[in-house]
Amino acid sequence: MVIVMKPNAKKEDIAEIEKLLKSLNLGVHISVGSERTIIGIIGDKRVLADTPLELMPGVDRLVPIVESYKLAGKTFKPEPSVIKVKDKEIGGRKLAIMAGPCAVESREQVMEIARHLKAQGVQFIRGGAYKPRTSPYYFQGLEEEGLKILAEAREETGLLVVSEVVSPGSLETVARYVDVLQIGARNMQNFHLLKEVGRSKLPVLLKRGLSATIEEWLNAAEYIMSEGNYNVILCERGIRTFETSTRNTLDLSAVPVIKEKSHLPIIVDPSHGTGKWSLVTPMARAAIAAGADGLMIEVHPDPKTALSDGPQSLNFKSFDSLMEEISKLAGIFDREI
Amino acid sequence: MVIVMKPNAKKEDIAEIEKLLKSLNLGVHISVGSERTIIGIIGDKRVLADTPLELMPGVDRLVPIVESYKLAGKTFKPEPSVIKVKDKEIGGRKLAIMAGPCAVESREQVMEIARHLKAQGVQFIRGGAYKPRTSPYYFQGLEEEGLKILAEAREETGLLVVSEVVSPGSLETVARYVDVLQIGARNMQNFHLLKEVGRSKLPVLLKRGLSATIEEWLNAAEYIMSEGNYNVILCERGIRTFETSTRNTLDLSAVPVIKEKSHLPIIVDPSHGTGKWSLVTPMARAAIAAGADGLMIEVHPDPKTALSDGPQSLNFKSFDSLMEEISKLAGIFDREI
Amino acid sequence: MVIVMKPNAKKEDIAEIEKLLKSLNLGVHISVGSERTIIGIIGDKRVLADTPLELMPGVDRLVPIVESYKLAGKTFKPEPSVIKVKDKEIGGRKLAIMAGPCAVESREQVMEIARHLKAQGVQFIRGGAYKPRTSPYYFQGLEEEGLKILAEAREETGLLVVSEVVSPGSLETVARYVDVLQIGARNMQNFHLLKEVGRSKLPVLLKRGLSATIEEWLNAAEYIMSEGNYNVILCERGIRTFETSTRNTLDLSAVPVIKEKSHLPIIVDPSHGTGKWSLVTPMARAAIAAGADGLMIEVHPDPKTALSDGPQSLNFKSFDSLMEEISKLAGIFDREI
Amino acid sequence: MVIVMKPNAKKEDIAEIEKLLKSLNLGVHISVGSERTIIGIIGDKRVLADTPLELMPGVDRLVPIVESYKLAGKTFKPEPSVIKVKDKEIGGRKLAIMAGPCAVESREQVMEIARHLKAQGVQFIRGGAYKPRTSPYYFQGLEEEGLKILAEAREETGLLVVSEVVSPGSLETVARYVDVLQIGARNMQNFHLLKEVGRSKLPVLLKRGLSATIEEWLNAAEYIMSEGNYNVILCERGIRTFETSTRNTLDLSAVPVIKEKSHLPIIVDPSHGTGKWSLVTPMARAAIAAGADGLMIEVHPDPKTALSDGPQSLNFKSFDSLMEEISKLAGIFDREI
Repeated sequence: MVIVMKPNAKKEDIAEIEKLLKSLNLGVHISVGSERTIIGIIGDKRVLADTPLELMPGVDRLVPIVESYKLAGKTFKPEPSVIKVKDKEIGGRKLAIMAGPCAVESREQVMEIARHLKAQGVQFIRGGAYKPRTSPYYFQGLEEEGLKILAEAREETGLLVVSEVVSPGSLETVARYVDVLQIGARNMQNFHLLKEVGRSKLPVLLKRGLSATIEEWLNAAEYIMSEGNYNVILCERGIRTFETSTRNTLDLSAVPVIKEKSHLPIIVDPSHGTGKWSLVTPMARAAIAAGADGLMIEVHPDPKTALSDGPQSLNFKSFDSLMEEISKLAGIFDREI
Repeated sequence: MVIVMKPNAKKEDIAEIEKLLKSLNLGVHISVGSERTIIGIIGDKRVLADTPLELMPGVDRLVPIVESYKLAGKTFKPEPSVIKVKDKEIGGRKLAIMAGPCAVESREQVMEIARHLKAQGVQFIRGGAYKPRTSPYYFQGLEEEGLKILAEAREETGLLVVSEVVSPGSLETVARYVDVLQIGARNMQNFHLLKEVGRSKLPVLLKRGLSATIEEWLNAAEYIMSEGNYNVILCERGIRTFETSTRNTLDLSAVPVIKEKSHLPIIVDPSHGTGKWSLVTPMARAAIAAGADGLMIEVHPDPKTALSDGPQSLNFKSFDSLMEEISKLAGIFDREI
Repeated sequence: MVIVMKPNAKKEDIAEIEKLLKSLNLGVHISVGSERTIIGIIGDKRVLADTPLELMPGVDRLVPIVESYKLAGKTFKPEPSVIKVKDKEIGGRKLAIMAGPCAVESREQVMEIARHLKAQGVQFIRGGAYKPRTSPYYFQGLEEEGLKILAEAREETGLLVVSEVVSPGSLETVARYVDVLQIGARNMQNFHLLKEVGRSKLPVLLKRGLSATIEEWLNAAEYIMSEGNYNVILCERGIRTFETSTRNTLDLSAVPVIKEKSHLPIIVDPSHGTGKWSLVTPMARAAIAAGADGLMIEVHPDPKTALSDGPQSLNFKSFDSLMEEISKLAGIFDREI
Repeated sequence: MVIVMKPNAKKEDIAEIEKLLKSLNLGVHISVGSERTIIGIIGDKRVLADTPLELMPGVDRLVPIVESYKLAGKTFKPEPSVIKVKDKEIGGRKLAIMAGPCAVESREQVMEIARHLKAQGVQFIRGGAYKPRTSPYYFQGLEEEGLKILAEAREETGLLVVSEVVSPGSLETVARYVDVLQIGARNMQNFHLLKEVGRSKLPVLLKRGLSATIEEWLNAAEYIMSEGNYNVILCERGIRTFETSTRNTLDLSAVPVIKEKSHLPIIVDPSHGTGKWSLVTPMARAAIAAGADGLMIEVHPDPKTALSDGPQSLNFKSFDSLMEEISKLAGIFDREI
């Protein structure tokens, strides 16, 4: 960390800070500039986490030099992580395609989708059983009944199940049925829930919050990892901006940025990212071209009748042509689906 | 709701939509424009909540006309709500001042602050016992121990206690000690938690999410109210924007906007809203001048040693002069502290 | 346009609006809902442009149905436009690659780059002669001297020249040397300048403003087109958001959105969009995969010594491998470079 | 400036940077941390403006320590500036109230408003003669004819005139009629225009850009000041965010932030800042309570017939009560209107 002093800071101010830092066994480098003095701090800055140096007389501001996350960072583990989910892998040569309905609606619906996905070579089925909705008057999900249906689909087709957990209280139930626990965007900083899934043995798909910086997102991953669960998959799903022609602004730059800062795999959800089915295929292609390790796509046999997020779901025909396009693209980047 | 058809929509498309709406017992008004046709829908649109009309052939987009919240809106209750908290009131003539440390650190710290606040005529003490922090390596709060200290301060001073609840699992514990349950910004769309506090009898202080629109904020209040708890106090605490010279951008326009749309009281937190103690007093004044029903202010006897958010805390001297300034201002607006 | 009335609007309010609209020869459709009345307006809404209906008694808000741009929209011209620039085309099967230094620094620099680009099959050279910089103390460009150097590069290599015009006063000078006039992001709503380039015969590359919605961007194109110059090429270059790990947030969804709303070609500038050279190649790939008609890329023989925006410039080696990757990708989408 | 090296930077990398800096006569402080080395640079960093140190081997990123503006900053001039406009002052004890129509529409309109403002004790009349509008099909202003009307109003009432200049070409014309040149939000980074008004002798009202940081805003002021014109008044008028219930998000925190960083006076425009007349008075009060030196308010005798921005204009009755409220508030802060 670097402390930037005010232009009018006094010698005594600087001396007092030096004394404080040394008392905490931190190294100190003082650099007297033409306009301001800056103070570099050497050592484990975690001993400073609770000391608001900004309030010491003469201090203008602090500049963090090292990220606050460790386990999620490349310094901790330089080579990319490949997350095992039973017999499948995420982050390796094979792109992870997770597809399915926004919400589990019925056994028939899920089985019809699962069979279709299976025939297309998909490995993961996604479906919401517990649905976080902006209004209490919208469909809230089938809960455990929905999870049973997903598990049944796995039994018949071999597709692995990804589904969202929305509260610590239902974690045990969800964990009984799914293969990957999903943390939704609105819960990315629900730190209590993060710690709970960090104690689980299941891989966790961590969606980026609507207004989370990449730094905060990696810190959320750190919450999970610091409890012992290193199997975290990141999922970019759009951030909130002033633009209104799309539901969110899909931040594809996050893909190469994450690849530079972290060893964790990252997939992209163009369905939530755009909110409009006609934009899903171009943005899915773009995600893979940017280097993503997979996709999460909403598919519904009849989007018009979907109980949740129909407008952003692909029907089978559109999904099949997406798969064909992605397959061609994957070849160029030495990957496959 | 209004359906806007595409310029090239066919007559059959319009006829099919008309048929669907009538089958749901909704009234239909078709308006053929020079470039496009629009279809107005009359009746309880909740029957449409799960029908993605956007996917019907020929449809361009939907335009909502009526807000999705009801109980939080002025149509439901035109006159302002005054929330009772034991012998105190929020939303009435008297401004609600909630002050205290960001985090409860020790019995001594809290008692010292409580006595000071009491002497200044403050009615509520705030203090975090469960702290949601962006990094798992930061101080996470004293938990139940902290709540006990707050309750002890109430016993001695009569100050009512406001403290945050971060998960359904600890709600019962928190509810045992506090007078007002606080929902933090990062949990504003933790819908499971909202429903749980909706079943509590305690008033709820609902902070605005970092990237929540006012519409989403009122829908979050609706989650609480639809479970039977109408005692919701809103708290503006800054939204996330591109500006970096403040921690957040305090959106004071939200105060008069809420007054137009809702009957719920609204207070303002300039400490989190700006992140810098030197900006707290001017923005507290501005909040009251904009019409806020109260303030939430971080106060610490020695901000330099605070375990959390020290840089945005006022010391006693600054707090006292803030109280003096607010008191003068209140008089102009026929309010008092 | 649709007028949404307040829940408590009176019959007389509605009657008065109806009277006003009819006096303007507009058709009126009134739709009495369960909670509110809405009024649809039929006819050329431009007669209303200067009538603030929002202020009529009983009116809650207005909902625009038809976009305010015409010439830039698909209703006006459904098939994609291909812009001719001398013997080259933008928007056709061939991807338009515009590359070169952020700023023209010297004859040697530009000639070295131009020869390299030519050898790589590039068709357009870009280079700033007039530089809009955030601080007056930064390098401001070689002005006309820089344009002469670019023209000399064209003479030797046949590369067509793209360069920015920053004020009406220098338009004539710039137009004498370049083949495509560039309007920079900071001037996207410099309406006076837009009208001036609209009276020019040269094609115009219109960069998206840092905080411009897609609707505003197309309205800026409309400014140019309404003066008679239909040769507009759009360029997405990143928008301003809260994320700080990239210089801007490159909004690639804008590519398919523009393709749905407009007939104008769109290219992408990943150099400004990300601000970091290591992100340029992945985002260039993503742009083409999203459907962009071309790329604008900063290239510099020795980015370390660049007088402007060095950190986002590719050196020759990186640029060559970008070209190779884009070439492979183009094949999949039935395009070429 | 501080250079943060990568964790894996080599000794030679550091040595090379040291050599470069010393060759530029800059002082160098190297601080070897546990994870990274940082390098502090001492001296006039302007010699580095065009050297992208980010590209030197081993460099991770640069951290600016000193702002890039000088003349606009408090280090250059610690005491607040009071700007003289003929016999009036902005930034002193007296609040500067600038009021008038968004657009000059007719002689009658302006004279009626001017007389009303005069009677209310207002000192400045504002009115747009050249209007930057988002669509070319909207009313574009009366141009010089409008300026003549404003000058006539000054002759009769003594009100000083504030009006916008939108291009260098019309600066001479505008300067002939007005007392304060206004630079609109969309032109805040029209650097060519900034330099031109910097060469004028007239005071300049510089509105903040829709997506401009406070740092960029002060740099825009620096453009004007570095040409010799130190008479700059800043005007906060709302920034662009995700919130849609107001036209912009009025960032009142900018007022105390500017007071900490700069000596220039700052006024607030709640009309554009909110876009809704019913929010103007509460936000005007809030602006003064936050410490603003004045207000810019849209007033129109009959907002319903206004040719531009009617919905955000106050009628005379609302304006008079705003003035009364502001007058009471001013007293508390030892100011007057």
